[in-house]
Amino acid sequence: MNRNVLLMDYYELTMCNSYFLNGMHEKQAVFDLFFRTIPDNGGYAIYCGLESIVQYIKEFKFGKEEIEYLKSKKDFDPSFLEYLKNFKFKGDIYSFKEGSVIFPLESVLCVKGNLVECQLIETALLTFFNHQSLIATKSARIVRAALNKTVMEFGARRAQGNDAATLGARASYIAGCIGTSNVYADFLYNIKALGTMAHSYVQSFSSEYEAFCAYAKTYPDNTLLLVDTYNTLKEGIPNAIRVHNEILKPLGKYLKGIRIDSGDLAYLSREARKMLDKAGLYDTKITVSNSLDEYLIISLNEQGAKIDSFGVGERLITAKSDPVFGGVYKLSAIELDSHLTPSIKVSDNPKKTTTPGFKKVYRIFDENSKAIADLITLRNEKINPSLPYVLFDPLFPYKEKVIKDFKLEEKLIQIFKKGKLVYELPNIESIRKYCKEELGTMWEEVLRFDSPHEYYVDLSKPLYNLKQNLIKKHKHD
Amino acid sequence: MNRNVLLMDYYELTMCNSYFLNGMHEKQAVFDLFFRTIPDNGGYAIYCGLESIVQYIKEFKFGKEEIEYLKSKKDFDPSFLEYLKNFKFKGDIYSFKEGSVIFPLESVLCVKGNLVECQLIETALLTFFNHQSLIATKSARIVRAALNKTVMEFGARRAQGNDAATLGARASYIAGCIGTSNVYADFLYNIKALGTMAHSYVQSFSSEYEAFCAYAKTYPDNTLLLVDTYNTLKEGIPNAIRVHNEILKPLGKYLKGIRIDSGDLAYLSREARKMLDKAGLYDTKITVSNSLDEYLIISLNEQGAKIDSFGVGERLITAKSDPVFGGVYKLSAIELDSHLTPSIKVSDNPKKTTTPGFKKVYRIFDENSKAIADLITLRNEKINPSLPYVLFDPLFPYKEKVIKDFKLEEKLIQIFKKGKLVYELPNIESIRKYCKEELGTMWEEVLRFDSPHEYYVDLSKPLYNLKQNLIKKHKHD
Repeated sequence: MNRNVLLMDYYELTMCNSYFLNGMHEKQAVFDLFFRTIPDNGGYAIYCGLESIVQYIKEFKFGKEEIEYLKSKKDFDPSFLEYLKNFKFKGDIYSFKEGSVIFPLESVLCVKGNLVECQLIETALLTFFNHQSLIATKSARIVRAALNKTVMEFGARRAQGNDAATLGARASYIAGCIGTSNVYADFLYNIKALGTMAHSYVQSFSSEYEAFCAYAKTYPDNTLLLVDTYNTLKEGIPNAIRVHNEILKPLGKYLKGIRIDSGDLAYLSREARKMLDKAGLYDTKITVSNSLDEYLIISLNEQGAKIDSFGVGERLITAKSDPVFGGVYKLSAIELDSHLTPSIKVSDNPKKTTTPGFKKVYRIFDENSKAIADLITLRNEKINPSLPYVLFDPLFPYKEKVIKDFKLEEKLIQIFKKGKLVYELPNIESIRKYCKEELGTMWEEVLRFDSPHEYYVDLSKPLYNLKQNLIKKHKHD
Repeated sequence: MNRNVLLMDYYELTMCNSYFLNGMHEKQAVFDLFFRTIPDNGGYAIYCGLESIVQYIKEFKFGKEEIEYLKSKKDFDPSFLEYLKNFKFKGDIYSFKEGSVIFPLESVLCVKGNLVECQLIETALLTFFNHQSLIATKSARIVRAALNKTVMEFGARRAQGNDAATLGARASYIAGCIGTSNVYADFLYNIKALGTMAHSYVQSFSSEYEAFCAYAKTYPDNTLLLVDTYNTLKEGIPNAIRVHNEILKPLGKYLKGIRIDSGDLAYLSREARKMLDKAGLYDTKITVSNSLDEYLIISLNEQGAKIDSFGVGERLITAKSDPVFGGVYKLSAIELDSHLTPSIKVSDNPKKTTTPGFKKVYRIFDENSKAIADLITLRNEKINPSLPYVLFDPLFPYKEKVIKDFKLEEKLIQIFKKGKLVYELPNIESIRKYCKEELGTMWEEVLRFDSPHEYYVDLSKPLYNLKQNLIKKHKHD
């Protein structure tokens, strides 16, 4: 995957050069990475991209060519370029675990370090987070829509570039897809690569039957035939059944499946099931593909389609219905007069006013281990889960709820400490399992498609007060 | 950029293994790459991605690790893996030039070679073509909407991965953007990287004024200030003017520009212009950003916004309003009985029935060098532009048009010949210039946003007859 150090926005360099020349480059700062809106009006998002972020930070180094290039821009002081030559990230990073369920306005990743190291990694962190969380979130929706049927990621050719194809396949697997068509994703991440034949295979033989025979002979243990090149019901399925009877059965094998890639998938799959069953092929699976997404899958299920597996392409790999995940990266504290001081950006839109300070994020669970809210606190606050605690809505603070006998889980785990990786990256199967567990802690009302319950992300009283004071202070400045 | 050989769909390998075992791997075939629908209901698309395709083909080689991986899948015969070890692309590729204006249903790239080499490159070709043409097409729309104002690509952080950010920046530059925020795109492709400061820069100082002063002192020749961190009209612009008067003017310098990134951009830009003009800063430019696209830019222009430059982010770099370019790759001829034989895939949808055979594509120009239609012919047809020629609509063949005194341009240029690159890749400035020239040959009616004229892509009579015969033949089979 592409992790060149220069995957940054130019303003990061112009700002840092100016910080350096103004002697501000060692100032400590805290930046929060968070998002404001869940795509597709959903109730939750899936956090993905941490592994890419960690690898990028580990490899962060300006090589000779990069320095020469920067020199050629004539915007940067030689002393700053000299500084960049030996530059390494030496800050702290805290993050949710990859595969977590995340919600708007909570810091999902937090960077504490000097102004330069915080600023230079901004774009790369956002690109990894935004893209991979987008695809994981979309995939979780599609997998959920498919109920107990399997979903395969088939979108590489329509992905927005190769990183999108491969890291998208990884994100989709974390969120519950069972495999991908993308061979490189399997090679890199051990995500089962799947696929059998295209229409061109059938066309390359003098008849569909001949093509199916050749395929069955090559793959007697895994014969899955694409039946819609000419006419699904009149030719494709009869030919597939004939190949079972004439080629596979005599070898003691069984037709594993058929795939339908065009036409009315509800109707064709029901007819296909009848024809297969009539031929005694009860265990032959039906796979469908062709511009599927969660909405079409729900509709197919409602129509009683007889489908065992969905191959989902362009609408998953680009998150077509809402293809931007709007993660942002905002300064929340800055060293002033040798003190790390909370900082705020006030907006007329209350949801766009940032939450100041160096913070923690907790998830609160009820006695049944279901998540009831996330709580953002100041870094040094202590919450005692054996005492009643008052939650309130930070936009409508009169809306209060007293909780007791709750469990707390701190969500921001330390990943880097003074530039050193202190977190062991889990393997992809663990991340996938963790994602499933996380979804299992959510109420059905948060997960549903239509008007999901808005999960609470609350501020502690001390943090709320700090925020209000800074808003007032700013107004009177 | 990521060009690993395994960026392919698994079915390409399962098919090719089967071709190999059936002794079909040396069969000659022709595949066409084309698309069916223009995104955003537009009248034209811009072809982009050829350079990536050429580099991928040149580097196409299975290394030791890749072969070991394939072996581990247990789907492939050892003899096929042995064959892949020494496999090189040795076919022919014809393509439109990068930056061309292209239309649905015409082959924009054509591969002729043996079945295996044609099939193994399918996904990579489609991914490069689909992604980069998507972004170039979207960017051309945005640049057109901006009229004589400049458009800058600012979307890296919301791109679908790093390849999307960088190759997207390249595509947007080819289609007319003047630069990018993405430093890596500048490093690789020499696309001017642009950027000045984020809100965090302003927040890192004890006041906005202090921040502006520091910036002006670092960049006296290029002082462009972000004025909306606190209050654009009451603080940001007055502070910017003050910095001009107190810092820049005494140095003999001039405030280059301001950027507004939030709020009502039409209103704020008009007010900003008045304030700057009143201060005598007639040459200070106004840049805006914040979720822009062609529709918002048109609306801003209609509202009399006073904007010199648009920074366009997520909606360009993901082509948000229509984020999939639906390019496909279809078999159009296959060797049968030692003859390269036209092949067709028939669909109930006439637009989805493929056009068979090994073909040429011409663009036809009138006496004013405006393009009037594209014409697809058989490879061996000759068209004499000094004789009248009858164009007709292949879906409604009674719709005829006789043209005379026309000019012809053959659009499919040979890129690879027997695996050897025979085309010199132009540099990015030439591609950008070519794209502008191509757009200049199109009628305004094709380029407009609302209900554009549907440009004609016609078939020659011999090709039309071949297609009809194959459709009939298929029906009677």
